[in-house]
Amino acid sequence: MPAYATNMRIKFPILALILEAVTIVLYTLFVVYDTGDKHGHDGGHHAAGNESHHETPMKLYPLFQDVHVMIFIGFGFLMTFLKRYGFSSVGINLLLAAFGLQWGLLLQNVWEMHGGKIRVSIDRMINADFSTATVLISFGAVLGKTSPVQLLIMTLLEITIFCINEHLVVEVIKASDVGASMTIHAFGAYFGLAVARVLYRPGLRNGHENDGSVYHSDLFAMIGTVFLWMFWPSFNSAIADPGDAQLTAVINTYFSLAACALAAYATSSLVEKKGKLDMVHIQNATLAGGVAVGTCADMNIQPSGAMLIGIVAGIISTLGFKFLTPILASNLGIQDTCGVHNLHGMPGILGGLAGIVAAALQRKEGYRAVHSHLCCFYLLTRHQLFISDFILISIYFSVSAATQAGGLASSLGFALVGGLFTGLIMKIPFWGQAPDQNCFDDSIYWEVPEEEKETEERLAHGDYSKNKAEA
Amino acid sequence: MPAYATNMRIKFPILALILEAVTIVLYTLFVVYDTGDKHGHDGGHHAAGNESHHETPMKLYPLFQDVHVMIFIGFGFLMTFLKRYGFSSVGINLLLAAFGLQWGLLLQNVWEMHGGKIRVSIDRMINADFSTATVLISFGAVLGKTSPVQLLIMTLLEITIFCINEHLVVEVIKASDVGASMTIHAFGAYFGLAVARVLYRPGLRNGHENDGSVYHSDLFAMIGTVFLWMFWPSFNSAIADPGDAQLTAVINTYFSLAACALAAYATSSLVEKKGKLDMVHIQNATLAGGVAVGTCADMNIQPSGAMLIGIVAGIISTLGFKFLTPILASNLGIQDTCGVHNLHGMPGILGGLAGIVAAALQRKEGYRAVHSHLCCFYLLTRHQLFISDFILISIYFSVSAATQAGGLASSLGFALVGGLFTGLIMKIPFWGQAPDQNCFDDSIYWEVPEEEKETEERLAHGDYSKNKAEA
Repeated sequence: MPAYATNMRIKFPILALILEAVTIVLYTLFVVYDTGDKHGHDGGHHAAGNESHHETPMKLYPLFQDVHVMIFIGFGFLMTFLKRYGFSSVGINLLLAAFGLQWGLLLQNVWEMHGGKIRVSIDRMINADFSTATVLISFGAVLGKTSPVQLLIMTLLEITIFCINEHLVVEVIKASDVGASMTIHAFGAYFGLAVARVLYRPGLRNGHENDGSVYHSDLFAMIGTVFLWMFWPSFNSAIADPGDAQLTAVINTYFSLAACALAAYATSSLVEKKGKLDMVHIQNATLAGGVAVGTCADMNIQPSGAMLIGIVAGIISTLGFKFLTPILASNLGIQDTCGVHNLHGMPGILGGLAGIVAAALQRKEGYRAVHSHLCCFYLLTRHQLFISDFILISIYFSVSAATQAGGLASSLGFALVGGLFTGLIMKIPFWGQAPDQNCFDDSIYWEVPEEEKETEERLAHGDYSKNKAEA
Repeated sequence: MPAYATNMRIKFPILALILEAVTIVLYTLFVVYDTGDKHGHDGGHHAAGNESHHETPMKLYPLFQDVHVMIFIGFGFLMTFLKRYGFSSVGINLLLAAFGLQWGLLLQNVWEMHGGKIRVSIDRMINADFSTATVLISFGAVLGKTSPVQLLIMTLLEITIFCINEHLVVEVIKASDVGASMTIHAFGAYFGLAVARVLYRPGLRNGHENDGSVYHSDLFAMIGTVFLWMFWPSFNSAIADPGDAQLTAVINTYFSLAACALAAYATSSLVEKKGKLDMVHIQNATLAGGVAVGTCADMNIQPSGAMLIGIVAGIISTLGFKFLTPILASNLGIQDTCGVHNLHGMPGILGGLAGIVAAALQRKEGYRAVHSHLCCFYLLTRHQLFISDFILISIYFSVSAATQAGGLASSLGFALVGGLFTGLIMKIPFWGQAPDQNCFDDSIYWEVPEEEKETEERLAHGDYSKNKAEA
């Protein structure tokens, strides 16, 4: 029995059951419902903008369900474009997210325990779903080349590292990242690319016959694309402050995606021979606007500003698929199966940069803060401060921008270092890894309908005679 | 023209039109909107915990839509795994649910008419959708072996019997069953299995060439699985009391399903040769946690308790598919096409049993009730009652447990007797029934695209020469 088979026979079920058993023990010790009667005066403090939580505990539930659809249908089916890897795409996606949400909910809230307990509410379930998105993005980079055992280990490590970075960016650096362009999209993409680099397979340098789509698998992938596209406004607004900020996040994402779609279609046609559309571009680059507008989704960038971000994202994402992905594979040894660098990586960085600009230009809040600084200063010094005016405004804007830049730098740093470390752990021979020729093929991890497999093989080789003889 | 063809030519459209005509007459007489201006003082009484209904008539609409997706996408696509029966799975699912919700809304509310009228509100639409779930579960047991005429009759009878049992369990016995493990899942499964037993086809003892999946039909089924998995928290919480109870139902279902998924994957790999995953297990057993946590979803079992229920459900469901389904077919003459016994039957009973335990252990409410009993008793007798304390507490817990047990027993009894009765009605030769060789084949009830049919026929007969010659 080859190593990767032993691996599935014994190591996979044991690892899955151990992870779940440890999780249940930790939940028994530390996790309770966030219901009103369970806790006293400290109940409303834990979540920003969630003070009225106990009167309306289900308020965020529709947004949670939209995010849930994106995680399980969106990410799952987006990856079904591979002709022989659909079971793994949607099936392992479900497995990783089901484990990841339990692990994420635990680790995201260790800094906010009350009385030694983590209290589960809808907003924490949304954040737990978010934490799994990082893993599903990284999964896209290594799709078809990693075993379920390796991927469970990646889930465990990546969500742990994500939670540390997220805490640092949001609570310590206090950068704004409502739609998580930096902490989820850029982080998940560069983490996955670092893992892919470590797990580089020279044997796949010239491609693999199953590393491609067939007609109906491309259609399956569009189920994922369209659900992601539709519900992205919920993703970017789910944890925004209730009221105007949340509405702003919905509107900005809605228009960014709409503009991005046109840009992706136009660019795809421009770069393809005969001006045809490429399904890979449509499946992915149409979504880049949702990624890129994430960081500044709740900021006052106006619908037209959101559209500009969307257009740029759609263009660079499509160009990335066309020109950059082949270079990454051939020159840098990064075989990015789903092109997450184009959908989450570059648009995530674009989102971080847009956030820096938007934060620096946040007129309303910015001027208000500067004005109060000036007043204080004036009162203290009793002087008119014409030069200081300019200096203070510069400092204020610089601090806003620097905060955002810090968030982006931290996310990229943790992603690259964490991804390299995780990739090295995943590479340990003990876990087993399929040989190159079995990559991109469900049948090493799944019972695949036999007759179909045989028929496909025969059809592929034009060998009809054998079947006829048997019949 | 064979009997089953005449059947579709004449009997199907006539039956469908008669059923709809009768429904319209009954709705004309008895059904109105539940809008504020239509009724006075008795308006708020009909639904527990729904007093503020008229201020927010649309409050439950998002939950209704989640349930709606489960009924029409979830159940419909889950059954598309059969290679030649996808039109019927998703198409007849739509037909039965569309008729069933009209019939269910009528019968569920005959006990609660005000001024001779049934008032339609969102919570009643949710319950009407729920009632169709019983039929769709039973449909899974007889999938591929029954005609649309037979299935319309089953819908009519099953929903009628379901409404009687539901009224008995919830209103008379007053058992708790918020997520309907007993009244929907166990009921629908054992009803369907009883029907399948009556309609037993000895000719299918050795299987049928179309009773299986192909690669893309298994992927279609995963659309159903994932939508059911995502929205199950809505199913189990939709009719819970607003506020904390509803939040508790969401959280318990979320964690039960997450833990169940890991258990199903691990068990599937453990029982399959070479440790591969079986798509049938993943499509179904990952959902068993939602079924099993249904009865006690709104009870205080804590997230870790919900996870334990989910793990047990995932394991027994997977083992059921692997070991029990073949035995049911070969020894008991129950040909359960979709394995509803493993997804809804056993997990439904597990849910009923978990409800018995949870109800008996509901400390908080239990002690409060016992305390008030004791106070009354003390005031009446003016005695300290040390022994009576113990007896009363025991009686209280026993009554809670007995109530739940009564609900489970009633559901199973109605299901088995009702299913046998309905099966006998469906077996009347007048309705027509396809011969064994035409089972699991859409083309006897549907126009199937010609080219596909021809190719399949050729493949089935090993006749590649024509195709080859044409090419």
